Amino acid sequence: MKNILSMSQLSNQDVQNFINSALEFKNGRTSDIGKNKFAVNMFFENSTRTKSSFQVAEMKLGMQQIVFDAGKSSTKKGESLYDTCRTLESVGANLAVIRHSQDEYYQELLNKNFNIPLINAGDGAGQHPSQSLLDLMTIQEHFHRLDGLKVAIIGDLSHSRVAHSDAEILTQLGSQVYFGGLQAWYTSEFQAIGPHKTVDELCKEMDVVMLLRVQHERLSQEENAEFSKEKYFEQYGLDMRRVNLMKENAMIMHPAPVNRGAEIADEVVECDKSYIFKQMVNGTFIRMAMIEAVLKGE
Amino acid sequence: MKNILSMSQLSNQDVQNFINSALEFKNGRTSDIGKNKFAVNMFFENSTRTKSSFQVAEMKLGMQQIVFDAGKSSTKKGESLYDTCRTLESVGANLAVIRHSQDEYYQELLNKNFNIPLINAGDGAGQHPSQSLLDLMTIQEHFHRLDGLKVAIIGDLSHSRVAHSDAEILTQLGSQVYFGGLQAWYTSEFQAIGPHKTVDELCKEMDVVMLLRVQHERLSQEENAEFSKEKYFEQYGLDMRRVNLMKENAMIMHPAPVNRGAEIADEVVECDKSYIFKQMVNGTFIRMAMIEAVLKGE
Amino acid sequence: MKNILSMSQLSNQDVQNFINSALEFKNGRTSDIGKNKFAVNMFFENSTRTKSSFQVAEMKLGMQQIVFDAGKSSTKKGESLYDTCRTLESVGANLAVIRHSQDEYYQELLNKNFNIPLINAGDGAGQHPSQSLLDLMTIQEHFHRLDGLKVAIIGDLSHSRVAHSDAEILTQLGSQVYFGGLQAWYTSEFQAIGPHKTVDELCKEMDVVMLLRVQHERLSQEENAEFSKEKYFEQYGLDMRRVNLMKENAMIMHPAPVNRGAEIADEVVECDKSYIFKQMVNGTFIRMAMIEAVLKGE
Repeated sequence: MKNILSMSQLSNQDVQNFINSALEFKNGRTSDIGKNKFAVNMFFENSTRTKSSFQVAEMKLGMQQIVFDAGKSSTKKGESLYDTCRTLESVGANLAVIRHSQDEYYQELLNKNFNIPLINAGDGAGQHPSQSLLDLMTIQEHFHRLDGLKVAIIGDLSHSRVAHSDAEILTQLGSQVYFGGLQAWYTSEFQAIGPHKTVDELCKEMDVVMLLRVQHERLSQEENAEFSKEKYFEQYGLDMRRVNLMKENAMIMHPAPVNRGAEIADEVVECDKSYIFKQMVNGTFIRMAMIEAVLKGE
Repeated sequence: MKNILSMSQLSNQDVQNFINSALEFKNGRTSDIGKNKFAVNMFFENSTRTKSSFQVAEMKLGMQQIVFDAGKSSTKKGESLYDTCRTLESVGANLAVIRHSQDEYYQELLNKNFNIPLINAGDGAGQHPSQSLLDLMTIQEHFHRLDGLKVAIIGDLSHSRVAHSDAEILTQLGSQVYFGGLQAWYTSEFQAIGPHKTVDELCKEMDVVMLLRVQHERLSQEENAEFSKEKYFEQYGLDMRRVNLMKENAMIMHPAPVNRGAEIADEVVECDKSYIFKQMVNGTFIRMAMIEAVLKGE
Repeated sequence: MKNILSMSQLSNQDVQNFINSALEFKNGRTSDIGKNKFAVNMFFENSTRTKSSFQVAEMKLGMQQIVFDAGKSSTKKGESLYDTCRTLESVGANLAVIRHSQDEYYQELLNKNFNIPLINAGDGAGQHPSQSLLDLMTIQEHFHRLDGLKVAIIGDLSHSRVAHSDAEILTQLGSQVYFGGLQAWYTSEFQAIGPHKTVDELCKEMDVVMLLRVQHERLSQEENAEFSKEKYFEQYGLDMRRVNLMKENAMIMHPAPVNRGAEIADEVVECDKSYIFKQMVNGTFIRMAMIEAVLKGE
């Protein structure tokens, strides 16, 4: 695999291979496949988790980083994304990890002459494959399987890069996906995948309750004005009362950053059922697996 | 020692251990205690010296850096400092060095589940232990002791992270601390430590004349409006006339950045008696000692 | 050579030595001359190419980077460039690569006590020696000589760091330099070097057609208001019709970033005659040669 752009390009076997490889890294396997190679992390949108996690994954594989700051780059002089990427390739980068606000920004790169391995770290409201894979890894680590599970995705479905790809891949893997949150966010594409239920119902029935952050920065001005954090929390937020409705073995997940007091109560973030920070731990290992795969060109 | 947060947590023996260890590094001792470990330098306020010095110290000990830019992080999406720090820990950081505008920002981190070693690189108007330790190292290197000395701290005491911790630790170590500069800055906490004198008097009597930068960015609008650089320089600034009043063996120190022409004359910055850039040289070695200590958990 | 500041300090033999050394690196020579040494890249103006290329060159020679962000540094507290540079030297930097908007910013550094090797990565409207050297390397790689060639420089001569140094060094090396673009940009200093011709004439006669980017950020408001991209493209832009006028073996060059549709047509950027991305490839090797030279102090 030379590029990892979208979950839709991955077969169930691909997913399993990534998870197995990541679990090996977590159990102590090392690799210096990136030795004498240079990675560039080009984040045109803010990031803490994904960017730092890719950095650690690259360094653990022996890669060195070209520090790239979009706000101080020649994109400020009007240079296109393609020309910027070709530049980094030309000066010696061996891997590009890119987050960009434009949906499928990578199509132009691949249609033209961009030739080094590329991992999509988030495109517009599109895909975020490293997040989906770390979600799957975390679920499998806990349940030892990815089929036959009931998974709820609750929250701002329509603005989420994760909702879409997670819902599709979980269905493809043989699990059932349910949805919660504002009806307005439960658009036709999600209706085609699974039913919508109240958060109380979902808490009672699900194996995995995956929350999404209310992304104020992606809501329209009107949506933001109407939106009340307290009201949202009351109707859709996960508090300890709802956690106590959950099955004993059920998991709480969240791609983070969390909005404490909006979609999740403060005391739920690190409760026993929460896998939120464990997801981040796994994120580094899954990214090691992804980078290894594209550097091998497998 | 797992965390270094404040000078007030350090005994005289701790201080001596740090200085001895730093002097060993300066004399050529090496260590790869940081090999295969990752440091993250989280500076929520501007910095040149402290940030670059920690970077070099980390790399000299074999650590690799996770590049973190507060302005491009998820704190911009409202993520709390605690969640940001827990994230860095989760993705694989082994050391956090943090500067933040909030006094004692670290209390929340330690009260909750933040578990990797933490070095405070400056909290609000609170502490800046690596600066205090490098000051002490530079004084000891010159006088071969830290007791029985007369040390003046001249300048914007009330807004300084250094004045406070230096005054307390020097007193604890057996030296006498004096103060100079605007009377308004000589608040009760400093009155309790030592007397206030004119700059001419201090120059004549002191072993160490430590200047503080006028921190325009920490003054109120009114204070800034009233403040005249020229007038300050005339009354409190260190010019060559005053340097010539100093004892032959006396030292000029400054945590920098300096305001040339405000608290210090241009030609004084690198004069024979000035240890300003030597302080910075020592800063890297003292930070190596600090990092080594927290990585060892000693 | 301890510092590389300007092409005017270099003899023809110096130029040849840099090119030969760079070609050796390109052919696989390695060096760890930078091992256990720290580079700081201080870019006070935006950059993608030059900054990332220096980073890769440093790392290929074994150096580690101090990450420096001018916008988050103490220059924001009023610290001077000299004090900032002396700070980086004091904390342990072994090489400084600096881009700054002030012409000959480096004079003050060298007149005072800045002592580590310095490479100028662009000063105001002055010099950009690594760009000139990579241009020369790319020309020599193609023509196997740097004398007896006809080279046109077309575009915003007066605001360009490259036009000046390239024109002078090419003349010094025994080639003939011609100019194209707005008459207003063809100032007396360029008139003294070579004639001005239409772009059609230049395309027919030249061995090298070197385009310059219209630097909107360096034009005055009035110049920008008057300037029409379409009109410029029609009169001076390189489109395929003009490329087809060029000699079979002729080269198209551009320091980039390119303004597609202004000084160059989209389809020309990566056409057979274009060496634009090859210039960037060579840039990393020429910078390795430059860094090696200053670290050796040769």
